[in-house]
Amino acid sequence: MVSIKDIANHLGIATSTVSKGLNNATDISDETKKKVIAAAIELGYTPKRRKFYNGQPDAPERKVCVFIENMDYENKDQFGYDLIQGFKQSAALYNWEVDIIPSSLNARTSTSNDYDQFMLMNQYSGAFMIGFSMHNDYSIQFSKTHIPTVLFDNYIPENPKVGYVGTDGNEGLELAVRHLYELGHKKIAFLNGAKNAMVSIEQTKAFKNAMKKYDLDVDSQLLESGYYVPDCAKYHVPKFLDNKATAIICASDLIARGAISEVTKRGLKVPDDISIIGYDDLPICLTVSPTITTIRQDRLSLGKSAMILLRCLIDDVPISKSILRPELIVRESTARCKAQS
Amino acid sequence: MVSIKDIANHLGIATSTVSKGLNNATDISDETKKKVIAAAIELGYTPKRRKFYNGQPDAPERKVCVFIENMDYENKDQFGYDLIQGFKQSAALYNWEVDIIPSSLNARTSTSNDYDQFMLMNQYSGAFMIGFSMHNDYSIQFSKTHIPTVLFDNYIPENPKVGYVGTDGNEGLELAVRHLYELGHKKIAFLNGAKNAMVSIEQTKAFKNAMKKYDLDVDSQLLESGYYVPDCAKYHVPKFLDNKATAIICASDLIARGAISEVTKRGLKVPDDISIIGYDDLPICLTVSPTITTIRQDRLSLGKSAMILLRCLIDDVPISKSILRPELIVRESTARCKAQS
Repeated sequence: MVSIKDIANHLGIATSTVSKGLNNATDISDETKKKVIAAAIELGYTPKRRKFYNGQPDAPERKVCVFIENMDYENKDQFGYDLIQGFKQSAALYNWEVDIIPSSLNARTSTSNDYDQFMLMNQYSGAFMIGFSMHNDYSIQFSKTHIPTVLFDNYIPENPKVGYVGTDGNEGLELAVRHLYELGHKKIAFLNGAKNAMVSIEQTKAFKNAMKKYDLDVDSQLLESGYYVPDCAKYHVPKFLDNKATAIICASDLIARGAISEVTKRGLKVPDDISIIGYDDLPICLTVSPTITTIRQDRLSLGKSAMILLRCLIDDVPISKSILRPELIVRESTARCKAQS
Repeated sequence: MVSIKDIANHLGIATSTVSKGLNNATDISDETKKKVIAAAIELGYTPKRRKFYNGQPDAPERKVCVFIENMDYENKDQFGYDLIQGFKQSAALYNWEVDIIPSSLNARTSTSNDYDQFMLMNQYSGAFMIGFSMHNDYSIQFSKTHIPTVLFDNYIPENPKVGYVGTDGNEGLELAVRHLYELGHKKIAFLNGAKNAMVSIEQTKAFKNAMKKYDLDVDSQLLESGYYVPDCAKYHVPKFLDNKATAIICASDLIARGAISEVTKRGLKVPDDISIIGYDDLPICLTVSPTITTIRQDRLSLGKSAMILLRCLIDDVPISKSILRPELIVRESTARCKAQS
């Protein structure tokens, strides 16, 4: 692991000057600060014990942060809530401090090279990135960052400082398809999330694999992408019904809730006329009628595993993927297929 | 997490009796012991603090074990050595005790249902399984075990108590193929390990994907499976040469060493006439001539990540896969392709 001394040797200056540069002290020049930060980035330094905590016996040894965007997390009904709780719970075991940064990375780091600089200037040892769609700017930043970084549902090839946590979509879709298959369904539709997200591409593959495993045909009319909001169901459910789907697997519980509304609006009943499965196991699964059969993502464990993975990356254990088991939770929105095949 | 009290309530007996049963005390009947063990297995109890350590202030809170077969580990030149070192180093951080069990699971557990029983009777909280070929007996045991268990290079579907550690074969084979592609090679052979092992099946897929990515043809005459010993090269390398391979990727450094011998025996030179890449980065890569270009598996980190994963499983964080980054290490056994295409 790179130390302050390594940076000092690299620049040929005193360790005390490096320490001042990394802690944004006022008694050294801006030019020296810039040099120190640039060398720290180049060498892959990870901030540790912060200067202003010196002398405090129980001060956190490290400070890490969570960047969150495109995802709600303020109350426990929302997907991000338990992710952050789990992350914080694991951090507390190490006595690490966690800051939540609810905004886009770009807003914080205005030039393309600035993620590492932002992290070092703020003495963050690492970050957990939630809800990001992986457009090109981020891919470039994360491909070359030296800062230990964990991405939720996103994968960056070949950078040993970046890891990925998520839930096993292959097992998840297999649990869903098998459940419907065992209930006699054959015309199974899949309403996926955002088309170009890595996780959606993987989920579509997983759906096709699972259908193949149970010898069921994938009908291109029964396979659509939407967004992770209930409203997206209205654009796709009518087509699924026109094409005689007897069951719909949705990529989130929110989409499933929208699908139930849409089906009901058209005078059909869930699960009597059509079965619907959600994904995630959000609290709303229990508060709607019928209650929603779903594939559970254990969000508290996902948050915990993100912290554990971040710690591994900080300790130079180069884990690239840490994948959790999904679980089928059977409730009222699925039932035996009545349609004749 | 299931406690001794849960077992006592389940059986309607005193917690002290359960404790005696789990600690193989002499003052209760064999029948009661059997009942206690059976209930502990059924409820998914994980052994903790052992009775005979009571009162010792720094006694290990848990004891775990490593089952190892089909793999050498006694000295640092062997694949298993650093795996076990890494596992022990991480265990030491938690003050957990590690036993190494160098024998087949079947020899220890004579009936098919006995893995859980063996673990409970010996107060093991969990196990790391190295070198197992996943025949049916083991698959059945690991599919239903309640004991936290980490498998090296083997995957069991849908059991949240079993996890898998390994190195990312997709990235590994891509690094190898890309390196050869950049050196101008097009006729690339792949000599894989044991044909039916899960990891070999994945590696073959990964090789094909990587070849496709660089628009190279996969020639079925240049794709064979052997075993993880140098000797296997002699059965396949002649065919590769007859079919004009200019480079051979081997699934282990031991196979690569055999391939170098075989090529040399036939009057050809490595890397002048043919390039050879190994896999693993064992110490022998540096002691042979030419030194072997290889795809590094960070075995110390693999061992550490196995312990970290085992701890997650014990704490009910259901991680199914923890995958490490491979790394390309360029040495003397690869060079620019001289053959005209």
